[in-house]
Amino acid sequence: MTSSMLNLGRLSMDGIPLCDLQGAESLESAQWFSFWAARGEEYARLGAEALERGHRRTAGQLTWLGSLCWQYAQYLWHHEPERREAGQRRKVELYDLAAPNMDPPAERVNVPIDDTEIPGFLRVPATRREGERLPLAVLLGGLESTKEESYAFENELLARGIATYAFDGPGQGELFFSVKLQPDFERYSSTVLDHLLERPEVDPERVSVVGRSLGGHYALKSASSDPRFAACVSWGGFFDMADWDNRAIHAREAYRYVTGAADLEDAKRIVQASLNCAPVIEGLRCPTLHHHGALDFIQLDQIDRLRTGAFNAPLDIIVEPEGDHCCHNLGPRARFAMIDWLEEKLVAVAV
Amino acid sequence: MTSSMLNLGRLSMDGIPLCDLQGAESLESAQWFSFWAARGEEYARLGAEALERGHRRTAGQLTWLGSLCWQYAQYLWHHEPERREAGQRRKVELYDLAAPNMDPPAERVNVPIDDTEIPGFLRVPATRREGERLPLAVLLGGLESTKEESYAFENELLARGIATYAFDGPGQGELFFSVKLQPDFERYSSTVLDHLLERPEVDPERVSVVGRSLGGHYALKSASSDPRFAACVSWGGFFDMADWDNRAIHAREAYRYVTGAADLEDAKRIVQASLNCAPVIEGLRCPTLHHHGALDFIQLDQIDRLRTGAFNAPLDIIVEPEGDHCCHNLGPRARFAMIDWLEEKLVAVAV
Repeated sequence: MTSSMLNLGRLSMDGIPLCDLQGAESLESAQWFSFWAARGEEYARLGAEALERGHRRTAGQLTWLGSLCWQYAQYLWHHEPERREAGQRRKVELYDLAAPNMDPPAERVNVPIDDTEIPGFLRVPATRREGERLPLAVLLGGLESTKEESYAFENELLARGIATYAFDGPGQGELFFSVKLQPDFERYSSTVLDHLLERPEVDPERVSVVGRSLGGHYALKSASSDPRFAACVSWGGFFDMADWDNRAIHAREAYRYVTGAADLEDAKRIVQASLNCAPVIEGLRCPTLHHHGALDFIQLDQIDRLRTGAFNAPLDIIVEPEGDHCCHNLGPRARFAMIDWLEEKLVAVAV
Repeated sequence: MTSSMLNLGRLSMDGIPLCDLQGAESLESAQWFSFWAARGEEYARLGAEALERGHRRTAGQLTWLGSLCWQYAQYLWHHEPERREAGQRRKVELYDLAAPNMDPPAERVNVPIDDTEIPGFLRVPATRREGERLPLAVLLGGLESTKEESYAFENELLARGIATYAFDGPGQGELFFSVKLQPDFERYSSTVLDHLLERPEVDPERVSVVGRSLGGHYALKSASSDPRFAACVSWGGFFDMADWDNRAIHAREAYRYVTGAADLEDAKRIVQASLNCAPVIEGLRCPTLHHHGALDFIQLDQIDRLRTGAFNAPLDIIVEPEGDHCCHNLGPRARFAMIDWLEEKLVAVAV
């Protein structure tokens, strides 16, 4: 199991230092959670010390790193739900602590929906001038990634003048406790838009949605269902779950967990009914990028289905011959490709 | 030899992506140079493409990454001087290309000395207000590190409102071609100060010097010899070269190369005469931090000598029990310790 959890490219690109990855390489599966929990607490302690001495930026970075270690402690730890839930909560707690000391800060912006709220963080480029309305990227996590995992990617967008809003939807992160994975993720992204388009920092004409892995699927559904999205990035996403039986066992277990299903058969039924672009994809009309690795376990026929279905959208497709799932193994260049594409759609680029 | 060149902690913390480090792990020694040269050219190509499409920040980051790959291609490649020199020049060329597209940009500021010039780059925090004079950190490379290697560390200082100036001194980088390692490094740092203190961005009362490895030694000598330095960080530095015979063979070879000595005996004589704090250390009066790893090949008796000699300076000494040379193996926390110390000395910190 350690090998499925130790996704070196992903953890590294999301911000885990090499020295911690090296420490994790020799772990037995059973030690995984405790190792990362201890790393998380060590960074949290160093962050708190830095804050006490007035080093706000260092405190923000170290405390965020503590949060990220907790994210990876629990992210595939479904077989011990209590520990997973405690890890999830500790991750959120540390991210909340880090948020005001990030550069730029992350503002907790929760959006009411039904009888609960969508938890999220808004970050606005430090270069924003008074009264300026900026483009926005709404960031969607996947099966076990959450709003706290996109910090490093956000920093690149923020440096290019794009505000970011990352939130947990059904079955994800904090919202998992009240809402399990269900068919209407796009209702959550639209509710988020209702709220964010009222913000003085946001230009309602330049709002994009970017999702990774399962989040890429959600991004396609969200942009298909809401014409207010002006651009869409499916980062290693997929069209439907026809290939359920080919998914790795830890991924199917994760789906069972986030759906709250009784068993894998039940999970399969819920997931295949919930995760399908077919009913809505005709509505996709905004410029859309699907970014994919040819070595991904998600097969290329998923791209064929997207290409066929999304006939109303200007569709760009990048398939990296050497890329794995989400091209985490390719380092920064895969992320820059998506960031540059977004910059072209959302920001005036002077050539 | 690959294992001495593949300093994972150093390369990673200085900015080499994990995917490239992984590619390098299986190399034979003889493949090292070509591997990194190819990585460097690939990033250079991607950077040029990004620039053509108007993506200035991505171009800056990728082209800088190309430069850094070239730095590590050649950094211990003394046995083929022509390739090493070509690599050194290509690294500089790419850094010059990246410089205007960094965030904040790096300005080429060369300082005349004798019949040549000291090559260097000045970076000023983007948050600087018109007319504001900011603290400055003068950054010194070591035996085979140069002004192009400190970019990631600079970014952390810049984010905290500290301007940076990194230059090549005798025996280093570009200056190696006209000036070999010699006893008067501190004359170069003082000449740099003569020039930089005239810059409108720099507060002459808040200028520090930070050097890594051999650069840490140079930092101690520079601050001992010039009272205009208000703070000094010796990052894995040393007091003298009494332990020449214990240095690794690749390091002794590197010293032979940068001194231009005929053989190792000659190099030993030049190095031991040139690199000794004893004659000047009494002059060290500014707050000074020596940061050290207990597992360093530089023995702790070097610290004793510093402590005894620097009796006029407020001296802080951090010895990390698990740290290797320059504590590269500890990830970001070692660097944050030095950055926070500098922030305390140079920037008003509100606790």
